[in-house]
Amino acid sequence: MKDLAVYSSFLLAFCLVSAAEPVSFTRGDSREELAARVANMQVRMRAESMDAVFLTAEANIRYFTGFSSSFFLSPTRPWYIIVPASGLPTAVVPTIGEDAFARAYTGRVITWPSPRVHDEGISELLSVFSELPRVSGRIGAELGSETTVRMRIIDFDRFRSKLNEQGMQMVDASDAILRARLVKSETEMARMHAACRAMSAGYRKIPETITEGMTEVEACNAIKRLFLSMGADDTLYVICRAGPISYSDIIGHPTQRRLQLGDVMVLDTGCQVDGYFCDFNRNFAIGPPAKEVNDTYAKLYAATDAALQIIKPGMKFQDIYRVMAESMEVSPSGGVGRMGHSVGLQLTEWPSIHPDVTESLAAGMVLSVEPSLGIPSGEGRYVVTEEVVVVTETGYRLLSERAPHHIAVVHAVASASRSEL
Amino acid sequence: MKDLAVYSSFLLAFCLVSAAEPVSFTRGDSREELAARVANMQVRMRAESMDAVFLTAEANIRYFTGFSSSFFLSPTRPWYIIVPASGLPTAVVPTIGEDAFARAYTGRVITWPSPRVHDEGISELLSVFSELPRVSGRIGAELGSETTVRMRIIDFDRFRSKLNEQGMQMVDASDAILRARLVKSETEMARMHAACRAMSAGYRKIPETITEGMTEVEACNAIKRLFLSMGADDTLYVICRAGPISYSDIIGHPTQRRLQLGDVMVLDTGCQVDGYFCDFNRNFAIGPPAKEVNDTYAKLYAATDAALQIIKPGMKFQDIYRVMAESMEVSPSGGVGRMGHSVGLQLTEWPSIHPDVTESLAAGMVLSVEPSLGIPSGEGRYVVTEEVVVVTETGYRLLSERAPHHIAVVHAVASASRSEL
Repeated sequence: MKDLAVYSSFLLAFCLVSAAEPVSFTRGDSREELAARVANMQVRMRAESMDAVFLTAEANIRYFTGFSSSFFLSPTRPWYIIVPASGLPTAVVPTIGEDAFARAYTGRVITWPSPRVHDEGISELLSVFSELPRVSGRIGAELGSETTVRMRIIDFDRFRSKLNEQGMQMVDASDAILRARLVKSETEMARMHAACRAMSAGYRKIPETITEGMTEVEACNAIKRLFLSMGADDTLYVICRAGPISYSDIIGHPTQRRLQLGDVMVLDTGCQVDGYFCDFNRNFAIGPPAKEVNDTYAKLYAATDAALQIIKPGMKFQDIYRVMAESMEVSPSGGVGRMGHSVGLQLTEWPSIHPDVTESLAAGMVLSVEPSLGIPSGEGRYVVTEEVVVVTETGYRLLSERAPHHIAVVHAVASASRSEL
Repeated sequence: MKDLAVYSSFLLAFCLVSAAEPVSFTRGDSREELAARVANMQVRMRAESMDAVFLTAEANIRYFTGFSSSFFLSPTRPWYIIVPASGLPTAVVPTIGEDAFARAYTGRVITWPSPRVHDEGISELLSVFSELPRVSGRIGAELGSETTVRMRIIDFDRFRSKLNEQGMQMVDASDAILRARLVKSETEMARMHAACRAMSAGYRKIPETITEGMTEVEACNAIKRLFLSMGADDTLYVICRAGPISYSDIIGHPTQRRLQLGDVMVLDTGCQVDGYFCDFNRNFAIGPPAKEVNDTYAKLYAATDAALQIIKPGMKFQDIYRVMAESMEVSPSGGVGRMGHSVGLQLTEWPSIHPDVTESLAAGMVLSVEPSLGIPSGEGRYVVTEEVVVVTETGYRLLSERAPHHIAVVHAVASASRSEL
């Protein structure tokens, strides 16, 4: 039952409608790739004197074991993975996952019949840790930046106390985990490329998909179908918000407000292919946009160009922020708080493109470059643009099809026909 | 900026293709409904002597403030809500959410420019708690069953210590929160009804949507588009797994395996309308199913009928489990570990239909009734069925269109044309 035949090794020639060339990608994580990820993590663990790392979060479990499921949406059952200092990960999981974890990159798979409210696998977990080869007694866990522990805190507290009683100490492994995930492999990049291709092809068709008079809810529904038809596996993150002159919210769900002449709409979408996200946005105007919006967009476009020019190994995340802020002549602050981020198994990943982030770029990192700027007439309205790039050995390669120089205009069909009456 | 005009008060006549009658529902939570939810929670808080409840999780924040966003997918920023013993909730949120929270059911909205790695809002949070009217010093939090804390554990530990230093004690509020969310309002039920309608209409069209020879990935993609076209807002949970005779996995992502004559496929889908889930599955056979699968399905169908007959206020969750286990003549155990659950803002909610759960049914609860059974030839293969019901004053009302008496058969197009050659 240890072969990953079902999950892996299918090379797809993935043809997207009107895309220049197909993106080939392998679906599922090969045992070789998973072994390399775990080995890389184990090097980091040795450097930080960790005897094991304890994982509970969806993205981390996927990354190190290949277990891929939407079932994390159900809050009832926790899933525990222990990555030892050497050897295969151990899974301590509900019986319902036995079949799936038997095919994942794991050694032992220990199960309990969850839900078992009085003991959701904590006994099994403690038993694994009691047999763990002990050197430092330091157990890494998801305690820090951009991570959360996906289990009951009452259980986590008890588990942590029991480890302490047995001479083990829980320490933060978030830095090691996030660094392990930061540089993407060729197969990871190919999936993100496929996701970006699907979104680029979809964005090209937006002007013929949405019309004045549609509600944001209707537009959002049509756009999700469009992205799926272009090859996205999932449309978990599709923001569709509009407002007169421009929008003031870029994170809310769509509303029943109808798209009107004079609106500018932001579509900010994170589609997935085989679990990997692509995250970039596009702006659409219902009828010609206001001059101040065009001017703001032009500044953002130039700022992105300035960012792209400096992206290469050795530059820092803060440098990308700085050149964009300088290009737009703004001080490093504002509502959004950053101008981009890494992307991968999660919609946004560490680190941020932020003035405080001194981390250096390296080949294989995938970044969303996302400058934003308030418009002169204010009232909380702004414009955001976004592109996705891979850092290469010598510079960058765009995964998103570069946004048009000017905001795309959706023809105001309803008002046109009104004026004809 | 306090009106919820954009989010609420749109009554939709939501017509679904080939549905018997339209489902009307209100999109967004009215201030009256949110006020009632918070007041209900405050009664529970007084009964448990809590001065406030501290919330971080998506479903709880949505439930008590109406803030509705997919942005929880980004792990960078935490969001904090404080529900005091009386009065409006306070939001302590990243600046990027200021506009959205100003329109939510909140009193004060305190922001910080996140990401701010060295202090992700903990100072602002402590400042709110230092001014909190103190009676018992007990602060409820998401510590127990079916809940997790969505913030860095390092921050949570520090926050909890600081509260202790100031004479406050963090206590588990999960029981009170889950009970507050358990009985659904008319507007919540209407959304779940709309989601179930979209899924029922979609399931009817599956035999003309999928064919032998399609991969699970291709089938899953087509099915998501189908559900969206039938009125689902989101297709976050669409399981599409098949196997010869029957399936052995009901939680994994779809694979590149092609649907073959002799397969049985499970579709287990949780679609959302306005953030509310409907969760029920359907089985499809590629060509006529094996006799043992038909026999197993018939037992599950009868078990569901037995469950439906007893569902009414006063019966217990364990009673539903018992009558299904008796109907199928199985001992209360097995891989899945339960035979259903509550459903609502989350795909699965507390409590489970499980032999240990003594909680009583009450009008307004919405349940997925989900018996499962291994097939006689074994090898980990089983069959699962599922329906969604509302508990009414006198019994139940189905939200899902009852599954057919026999497994629906997808005509084996490819093999039919092969045999014609």
